[in-house]
Amino acid sequence: MQLQTASWPEVEAYLKTSKGIVIPIGSFEQHGPNGLVGTDAICPEVIAREAGEAAGFLVGPTFNVGVAQHHLGFAGSMTLRPSTMIAAINDWIDSLVRHGFRRIYFINGHGGNIATIAAAFAESYAAWSMDGDACPYKLRQMNWWELPGVMDVCKSIFPVGDGSHATASEVAVTYYAYPHAVKDVAMSPKIAPQGSFTDAADYRRNFPDGRIGSDPSQATPEKGAAIVAAAREALARDAEAFFKS
Amino acid sequence: MQLQTASWPEVEAYLKTSKGIVIPIGSFEQHGPNGLVGTDAICPEVIAREAGEAAGFLVGPTFNVGVAQHHLGFAGSMTLRPSTMIAAINDWIDSLVRHGFRRIYFINGHGGNIATIAAAFAESYAAWSMDGDACPYKLRQMNWWELPGVMDVCKSIFPVGDGSHATASEVAVTYYAYPHAVKDVAMSPKIAPQGSFTDAADYRRNFPDGRIGSDPSQATPEKGAAIVAAAREALARDAEAFFKS
Amino acid sequence: MQLQTASWPEVEAYLKTSKGIVIPIGSFEQHGPNGLVGTDAICPEVIAREAGEAAGFLVGPTFNVGVAQHHLGFAGSMTLRPSTMIAAINDWIDSLVRHGFRRIYFINGHGGNIATIAAAFAESYAAWSMDGDACPYKLRQMNWWELPGVMDVCKSIFPVGDGSHATASEVAVTYYAYPHAVKDVAMSPKIAPQGSFTDAADYRRNFPDGRIGSDPSQATPEKGAAIVAAAREALARDAEAFFKS
Amino acid sequence: MQLQTASWPEVEAYLKTSKGIVIPIGSFEQHGPNGLVGTDAICPEVIAREAGEAAGFLVGPTFNVGVAQHHLGFAGSMTLRPSTMIAAINDWIDSLVRHGFRRIYFINGHGGNIATIAAAFAESYAAWSMDGDACPYKLRQMNWWELPGVMDVCKSIFPVGDGSHATASEVAVTYYAYPHAVKDVAMSPKIAPQGSFTDAADYRRNFPDGRIGSDPSQATPEKGAAIVAAAREALARDAEAFFKS
Amino acid sequence: MQLQTASWPEVEAYLKTSKGIVIPIGSFEQHGPNGLVGTDAICPEVIAREAGEAAGFLVGPTFNVGVAQHHLGFAGSMTLRPSTMIAAINDWIDSLVRHGFRRIYFINGHGGNIATIAAAFAESYAAWSMDGDACPYKLRQMNWWELPGVMDVCKSIFPVGDGSHATASEVAVTYYAYPHAVKDVAMSPKIAPQGSFTDAADYRRNFPDGRIGSDPSQATPEKGAAIVAAAREALARDAEAFFKS
Amino acid sequence: MQLQTASWPEVEAYLKTSKGIVIPIGSFEQHGPNGLVGTDAICPEVIAREAGEAAGFLVGPTFNVGVAQHHLGFAGSMTLRPSTMIAAINDWIDSLVRHGFRRIYFINGHGGNIATIAAAFAESYAAWSMDGDACPYKLRQMNWWELPGVMDVCKSIFPVGDGSHATASEVAVTYYAYPHAVKDVAMSPKIAPQGSFTDAADYRRNFPDGRIGSDPSQATPEKGAAIVAAAREALARDAEAFFKS
Ligand code: NI
Ligand code: NI
Ligand code: NI
Ligand code: NI
Ligand code: NI
Ligand code: NI
Repeated sequence: MQLQTASWPEVEAYLKTSKGIVIPIGSFEQHGPNGLVGTDAICPEVIAREAGEAAGFLVGPTFNVGVAQHHLGFAGSMTLRPSTMIAAINDWIDSLVRHGFRRIYFINGHGGNIATIAAAFAESYAAWSMDGDACPYKLRQMNWWELPGVMDVCKSIFPVGDGSHATASEVAVTYYAYPHAVKDVAMSPKIAPQGSFTDAADYRRNFPDGRIGSDPSQATPEKGAAIVAAAREALARDAEAFFKS
Repeated sequence: MQLQTASWPEVEAYLKTSKGIVIPIGSFEQHGPNGLVGTDAICPEVIAREAGEAAGFLVGPTFNVGVAQHHLGFAGSMTLRPSTMIAAINDWIDSLVRHGFRRIYFINGHGGNIATIAAAFAESYAAWSMDGDACPYKLRQMNWWELPGVMDVCKSIFPVGDGSHATASEVAVTYYAYPHAVKDVAMSPKIAPQGSFTDAADYRRNFPDGRIGSDPSQATPEKGAAIVAAAREALARDAEAFFKS
Repeated sequence: MQLQTASWPEVEAYLKTSKGIVIPIGSFEQHGPNGLVGTDAICPEVIAREAGEAAGFLVGPTFNVGVAQHHLGFAGSMTLRPSTMIAAINDWIDSLVRHGFRRIYFINGHGGNIATIAAAFAESYAAWSMDGDACPYKLRQMNWWELPGVMDVCKSIFPVGDGSHATASEVAVTYYAYPHAVKDVAMSPKIAPQGSFTDAADYRRNFPDGRIGSDPSQATPEKGAAIVAAAREALARDAEAFFKS
Repeated sequence: MQLQTASWPEVEAYLKTSKGIVIPIGSFEQHGPNGLVGTDAICPEVIAREAGEAAGFLVGPTFNVGVAQHHLGFAGSMTLRPSTMIAAINDWIDSLVRHGFRRIYFINGHGGNIATIAAAFAESYAAWSMDGDACPYKLRQMNWWELPGVMDVCKSIFPVGDGSHATASEVAVTYYAYPHAVKDVAMSPKIAPQGSFTDAADYRRNFPDGRIGSDPSQATPEKGAAIVAAAREALARDAEAFFKS
Repeated sequence: MQLQTASWPEVEAYLKTSKGIVIPIGSFEQHGPNGLVGTDAICPEVIAREAGEAAGFLVGPTFNVGVAQHHLGFAGSMTLRPSTMIAAINDWIDSLVRHGFRRIYFINGHGGNIATIAAAFAESYAAWSMDGDACPYKLRQMNWWELPGVMDVCKSIFPVGDGSHATASEVAVTYYAYPHAVKDVAMSPKIAPQGSFTDAADYRRNFPDGRIGSDPSQATPEKGAAIVAAAREALARDAEAFFKS
Repeated sequence: MQLQTASWPEVEAYLKTSKGIVIPIGSFEQHGPNGLVGTDAICPEVIAREAGEAAGFLVGPTFNVGVAQHHLGFAGSMTLRPSTMIAAINDWIDSLVRHGFRRIYFINGHGGNIATIAAAFAESYAAWSMDGDACPYKLRQMNWWELPGVMDVCKSIFPVGDGSHATASEVAVTYYAYPHAVKDVAMSPKIAPQGSFTDAADYRRNFPDGRIGSDPSQATPEKGAAIVAAAREALARDAEAFFKS
């Protein structure tokens, strides 16, 4: 069930059966020569949608622009300041809690979001902890590629050059979701360099075409389908366990 | 061209031909017994996508949760505090301006957003005005139903009971976009009451099923298609004019 | 009754008879060659004062500096950032609500304030809507020139060249309030250009002497008196209706 | 010269002769049984106006609501949160600096504002100090009753019962400014108690009618005139010295 | 008792005997040619520690970086923006109040902190005053050199050249606390100039080596011991009185 | 070299030889029945001090209160809201960068801080990335127990019951630093339970005496000395490498 296409009476009925919701959370940022700017939003969105349809849980709107300041050296990348993102995530949480949701599961598509999501959760809990009342809800974040079993699938499909940004896996997932967006681009070098970064200028200097450690030219819609299938199952189980916790 | 499915080199190439981008901006909130919670995000999103494809301009991510505090009495509705939304819109603007975008057009789907978007624009301009430098970019917001000619189409299709919230027109647009989400719900009363509101409790008291002045049971995908067709053309022209201004 | 010159026991007594208060809200900004920087604060202040004396309602302090970033290209103009204004208006509201005021009516003198006042109201209501409690108070804003009947008076007095900034009407009102401040300045061109603007540099480029569409050299204290008389009556009725709503 | 009644060309001309401006800053809060809620705004406003007319300097709008949380136990009192006031003062400063003002003198009417004004100044300077650039302007705050010689006049007029809140002196100044607002109220006890306070509940418990240490029934318009005369001269000299510093 | 070296059961036991805690609050900023950057944190920390051990009260962590924007022209100086400091102090207060502390005594080592601490207190009280509930706790700040009798000791030890920044007294206290950090530096001029300042550039221009009015080459650990002895006793008595208030 | 006991000329001289500084960052929070509330501040502080003395780098003040909302169910625990901590860390960074520091190394003592420190770094970089300028400095955080080789030492000393909060290792480090604070408390159960937590109420319910998975009664000053020796060397090397990066 998608919140987007549900009516409020349908949501009200859902809340009588479950207090859980899944929120895809991503980023709009460069993903190398053949990757989509929306990759990190698309991946958790498609996985959550399929998992929600399979398992019957509610999927909320995609929090689509995250913390991606280090990608701003590449056209089209967007970012929130972390302090803005903390405020926005808390408004989302407060809205959902208002209706009776008690388990809010953020399925994340972007490594750069992890710390700020965790800080946003601590900001949310802190209001209760400082007041002395018990917080009535639980928050969870999970990166889709860290769902049980998913990385194994990715590594078996892309034993070489999956990488850590603009990965073959995530590009494959987006090609599965948007097959007309497949881009045929030669990679040079074949596998991008590894390394670390600070701000956008540093990132672009270290990773001239945006990729880190990957050869995403290996990505195909079919490979993406296999990854989504694994992630969908894993998310369904993990969300169910969280909703019952 | 959709930013979501573009690569950064494609965006870089686009920027050599145009400095303009269109951002759909909406809300996740109740839309009555048969309307979708995502209505106000879906409408500008589908109109912008079709207009962008027709006219060749870039469409960015949908700013999908807006200021809808008055709808929180109905399950599934979400809101940002206006101060959060001002900060978030400014982060989006600053990100886009960083890449060279100089005309940012927010196509809006929710009346409750209008004031906060305008305030966010003033916050953005104020930084330049207070420093004394000339702002290099222009911002524009437009409600999709106020695009030239659109309201005439809506009124011709729904001469009675289009209303002002959960309108027959907007529900029709979402049914066009998501035909599987069409909901067959009888309306009681046939046409919802008119009136004003303050907070969520006041809204729910005045408008028990969420609608204001509308009979959205008239909505069909076909009627939505006609509205989108009109809005798509109007947006293409209006955005083009803005980009050249 | 003016809050400024009332004692707290007088306010306490007033609250036993009415829960309503009127707050003039304006701006300090350029108003063309012969207009006063304080125009947008003076107009609602004088209208509210006279209406309050006639109708017996309480008038609070004037919120005198608003959102006028676009006027900063002209000496003496001042602005708040919209986010600051939202915070300040909310502190004013919270203070008044603390004492039992339940209807707070902002009579506004500046178009640039409208969006931010509306956003501030949504910020105030949102605290209640997100908590799930019913908000015990109502907020209203009204531009003095949009009070019933006022624009008709203005148009009958200034059939040509009333304009939309530094209007003949508002300058006349200030001349009525401060007759010693009447300035005899020739306008060139007689009637200022029309148009739109973004930031301060853009505004100054488009409107070199600050006026938009107006010939305020027509303003006199007598004409201002007629406008104030109409606005005073209209405000008294509108506030009374709001206080009873 | 009053900014309120000046035109922008007049301000522009003024800036060629002086870079200084005086801003009255006060509070709207209870001032005991016979004192005006607007006392702390009125006093610096009237003193600044008369000094500005005598000495030819520019007087800006009155920052009329300050930090008065401790007075909220009495009807009509209003407050800003200190963090809001810091933001608002900085917006005022930034606006004035934009036009070339280089000496901004806040003449203060409320003890509860002092710390927050000082913090606001530090916030303003900090932006320059942290960037490493020299700040081009200077800020000053002065309580009107601490202007050279003023306290001597007050003590000679009210040798007993001037007090420290709702003082005979400040009430006298407001009676001079608004003679029709003189209130004839018997004080009980004749002289109010002394003491300290924390929040509004604590204040009201300690000072049941709002006064601290004062017998403001001694106030008359004539006594206020004498105080204003002294303060006007002192402010003219002090502001002139500051503008030249 | 030091919170730093206490266990939570020890704190819980303490709270059964006292609701009071002392928080040293200082600054990291230049203190002239022979003074320590940590002077303003060290002084209240050592005085509070000795007083706490003597009198049995609890001493919390040192709030070690304060508002010192004016010292940023000298290497090693650090500052918070006042608005940041207000937020941080309020988080500290809220945490302590959560556990049942009802008297929080900030012993301050830095003149530049005074206003912001006072503003932070008003921010804390304002939350209660605006809600209408009585605040259950009291806050106090005291500069260590203004504790009863301390200045007399300082003046008797340093009759000439104690000064107002990088004072002989405070440097002596730090030398007592950190005898290995004594620095033998000749002062030129012997006694530093007096004066005022605004931002960091202005400060450095007026006070080239950082001192104001002082000759801190007179400082010795022994002299510092005498000052600490006086301050320790005075703080013990003052805190005890506050805890009982 | 400790910033606390350095003079500004000494810092200025240091900056000619190195652009690096180490900031201990911790927390004040319960550490079980025999652990110190200051544990997480003390550990990085003592390790950084010894490393700085050995390797000659500068150590700044300890950021001593962090994000510990989940510990507020135990007396004496303190927390910052994450958004406050982000602001404060950025003020610290901006201050240090102002003086020419270009490598700022936060040696962290508290798991609950990690996400917020990372978010604070992203906030700092984002200012540069969004402006389009290259950030001139680098930021690093490292948990002391994750320094190369340290965990091996801890595990060899405490093969059983080191745990994950109120660990035997961290308690031992504090006992080494404050041998008079050693507390002899029997643990029941011997080894605390494992698990996860959300807010303070949830934490206290799951971990009744505050420990997670540990038996800190094994801690002794001698064992702490061994851990500090290992951590000191590792930090010296890691900081040196970072300063040269
Ligand atoms: Ni990605
Ligand atoms: Ni809608
Ligand atoms: Ni106007
Ligand atoms: Ni007063
Ligand atoms: Ni000092
Ligand atoms: Ni720890």
